[in-house]
Amino acid sequence: MSVLIVGSTALDSIKTPKAENPRLLGGSASHAGVAASFFSPVNLVGVVGTDFPQRYIQLYRRHGIDLAGLQIVPGKTFHWSGEYEADMNNRRTLLTELGVFERFTPTLPAAYQRTPFVLLANIAPVLQHHVLDQMRRPRFVTADTMDLWLNVALPELLRLLKRLDAFVLNDSEAQQLTKEDNLLAALRKIHQLGPQYVVIKQGSHGSVLSGPRGLFICPAYPLRKVVDPTGAGDSFVGAMMGYLAAAKGPVDNHIRRAMVYGSVVASFCCEGFGLQRTAKTTRPEIEQRVRELEKLTRF
Amino acid sequence: MSVLIVGSTALDSIKTPKAENPRLLGGSASHAGVAASFFSPVNLVGVVGTDFPQRYIQLYRRHGIDLAGLQIVPGKTFHWSGEYEADMNNRRTLLTELGVFERFTPTLPAAYQRTPFVLLANIAPVLQHHVLDQMRRPRFVTADTMDLWLNVALPELLRLLKRLDAFVLNDSEAQQLTKEDNLLAALRKIHQLGPQYVVIKQGSHGSVLSGPRGLFICPAYPLRKVVDPTGAGDSFVGAMMGYLAAAKGPVDNHIRRAMVYGSVVASFCCEGFGLQRTAKTTRPEIEQRVRELEKLTRF
Repeated sequence: MSVLIVGSTALDSIKTPKAENPRLLGGSASHAGVAASFFSPVNLVGVVGTDFPQRYIQLYRRHGIDLAGLQIVPGKTFHWSGEYEADMNNRRTLLTELGVFERFTPTLPAAYQRTPFVLLANIAPVLQHHVLDQMRRPRFVTADTMDLWLNVALPELLRLLKRLDAFVLNDSEAQQLTKEDNLLAALRKIHQLGPQYVVIKQGSHGSVLSGPRGLFICPAYPLRKVVDPTGAGDSFVGAMMGYLAAAKGPVDNHIRRAMVYGSVVASFCCEGFGLQRTAKTTRPEIEQRVRELEKLTRF
Repeated sequence: MSVLIVGSTALDSIKTPKAENPRLLGGSASHAGVAASFFSPVNLVGVVGTDFPQRYIQLYRRHGIDLAGLQIVPGKTFHWSGEYEADMNNRRTLLTELGVFERFTPTLPAAYQRTPFVLLANIAPVLQHHVLDQMRRPRFVTADTMDLWLNVALPELLRLLKRLDAFVLNDSEAQQLTKEDNLLAALRKIHQLGPQYVVIKQGSHGSVLSGPRGLFICPAYPLRKVVDPTGAGDSFVGAMMGYLAAAKGPVDNHIRRAMVYGSVVASFCCEGFGLQRTAKTTRPEIEQRVRELEKLTRF
């Protein structure tokens, strides 16, 4: 089955102590879309300007991503610029130019409206709502978010939570949303806000799922070197949704494994700038790391 | 088989935002000793003053801990006092009165010198050396440490590392010792310093082992409520060594499971002040949480 992914499609200029990489392909929908494409067909919904490099369109196409939902409009593509510190744990935004993204209204092609799996990748909650409003009985809806929306769009986000099957956020966001330091207490509060599945991402410590079958502690794949963590969270949830869309039978039977695939694709993401490493990844490489994670956690 | 444990035996006064608990039984050897006692006989090496409450001697005895190596000398027992912040992640020391601990020389009873498993729990490296000097061909030697010794006794600690089978430390200590943020890079550097097994503790994120059979990612048992994390790391390594001493065959066959038992006993430790919860724990309760951790990590 297919997965519909809406989110940002951007150009990222990423600075680290060792390198500067201007105008890489970025954005939550780009990372999630390529990650999902290893497992299932992807319908992408986003907007770019006329300055968007043709080679990035080709990159999407090479991954079999359907671009009927990608609007190309006069103006500049959303451009984000950020800088990482040496330990890769802290980044600061140098520049945010919204460009055509400022007036983005995600209008779905008719053919997208029955996509069974829906990933509302990180984007303003009002746009996530707008996409859901156009969907016809989706089978499984997941949303990701970021701290910005907790600060500036909390009411819309809370209203969105009631419409989701799964909500994915990172540990600091969970703490901000629930005012709970304790992971289990935070999970319980987020369930009360609506979603049956809650996934809390913990960066290099992996992630935790709380769902109908209880908790799952999902490991991160240990890396020798983190080159650029931008998009790792988007890759995680994209691969998770792609894997779920490809799996047969109830989501409950597959969601743990889907998260492990998410961890693995996120690990490749971290090994290159932007999508450079992810885009070169092969399915056998992914399977290899999944097998390694099985070995690394068995006792 | 038995495990010899040397470390501090102390009275801990622990303040949290909600409670104040004066003169609890504490110290690395107390926590590690009780934790190990669930699995194998323990030979304890430590020192207390004449003020040491008889009920704590009884607590050790109830856990079958051999006290031939516990010196009771004129003077005051080591007294540590600390305060936790609301999130339990930060603590500050209010008071350290070394008392009889200041002149402690761990002299082993002859009967202890052939104990096959040795845990050099957190204590000055010079004392850890002194214990090792008295041992006759121990089968497996593990040491724990703390940031203080990295700051004030690094040469002795580095010399100790060459005498160990396993070294256990927490993530911030590993970073301080190796100047590496990356976990795998830190592990590699610590192996180069001597130990064949390196365990890095990551608090509520679990721990990681690096050994001859590669990496193992060990989960932490998720808790609804952390009452007092003091001694959790000592409990972890104590239970790990107790489990290893009780297991038949090569350490390599059992060390992963030993760490999981360590995680579980540490989780009980966190649920009460000092040793209050650990001391009430039963083996079936431990087994129950180990089974839960198996379910929580299976995919």
